[in-house]
Amino acid sequence: MAAISADQVKALRDRTGAGFMECKAALTEASGDLEEATTILRKRGLAQAAKRVGRSTQQGQIGAYIHAGGRIGVLVEVNCESDFVARTAAFQALVKELAMQIAAADPKYVRREDVPAEELDHERAIYRAQVANTGKPAKVIDKIVEGKLNSYYEHVVLVDQPSIRDAKVKVSDLIAQTVAKVGENVTVSRFARFRVGEGA
Amino acid sequence: MAAISADQVKALRDRTGAGFMECKAALTEASGDLEEATTILRKRGLAQAAKRVGRSTQQGQIGAYIHAGGRIGVLVEVNCESDFVARTAAFQALVKELAMQIAAADPKYVRREDVPAEELDHERAIYRAQVANTGKPAKVIDKIVEGKLNSYYEHVVLVDQPSIRDAKVKVSDLIAQTVAKVGENVTVSRFARFRVGEGA
Repeated sequence: MAAISADQVKALRDRTGAGFMECKAALTEASGDLEEATTILRKRGLAQAAKRVGRSTQQGQIGAYIHAGGRIGVLVEVNCESDFVARTAAFQALVKELAMQIAAADPKYVRREDVPAEELDHERAIYRAQVANTGKPAKVIDKIVEGKLNSYYEHVVLVDQPSIRDAKVKVSDLIAQTVAKVGENVTVSRFARFRVGEGA
Repeated sequence: MAAISADQVKALRDRTGAGFMECKAALTEASGDLEEATTILRKRGLAQAAKRVGRSTQQGQIGAYIHAGGRIGVLVEVNCESDFVARTAAFQALVKELAMQIAAADPKYVRREDVPAEELDHERAIYRAQVANTGKPAKVIDKIVEGKLNSYYEHVVLVDQPSIRDAKVKVSDLIAQTVAKVGENVTVSRFARFRVGEGA
């Protein structure tokens, strides 16, 4: 069995918009052949996601979740293209799952683009200071800093977070799976998370 | 039966912190006597509210309400002084009621102090322009402008809104009633209201 590299998985994900686990499975099945793996995903209905990205998502659902006897509450807006899809069980299950994810994993932003530039600069400066005295070459330091930044994104960015159900699945994978199931573009536009005492 | 003026009701409210309707009823019963009306409210446990204002409210509940099949969602944080009170039916009923109020009446701010100064200036300028050419004396115009500003507050400020159940009762009255029932200071610290499509 061919070992599948992270770069191969990334290439397939970029091409199809399908989730990490699906892409890895398809590549394994196709012994690393990108074309064949794409075909496998297409047959499974998982490869259409990418085509749908960018299509207008003005319908959807507001989901709410109250945790720990009312000490934490979450509101999330998840959008799709039609009211019909908004009423499907698959879509509503995603809305519920995302609300629970936000309650448990406490993200600060929906996507990377939402992180303010000053906050990124601030994080980068900290990471750079941490490795500055290691005597490593500049290129290596850059890589370490970017690696730490990726970990940071996985903490604060909802779609980059590992799922609370399965750490190997990212939230973006859950969304891509729903896209494949419902046949429409699906996006998270915003969320609010209140914890008792934080706003008082 | 003595007619009760708005000034009398205001005086009793300032003194006791009790709700508008309770104060009016107590004054009617007391034939307009402020002292006697205060005693009536004290006996009913409604006059202690004022003493509690300012006491720390770090406990509470996050309430959520989903309206119209998921098209509107509300999250609200209501605070009290103890976890014990946060678990009472009276407190939780208020949390639920406020979430529904916010869903239905769409306030923008919790209290008057939260309205940005620029927004107030903008509103005042509009009202002033509306009455500028009426030929009325400046003092009258000022009064009209302040009257219009009060109506504006009743639209956008949660605690100034009339209750969705009974337009004669203000949201601040509902809160004061709960203060009287639970014997602790109760405040609303924040809310979020999402409508599908607004955030996309």
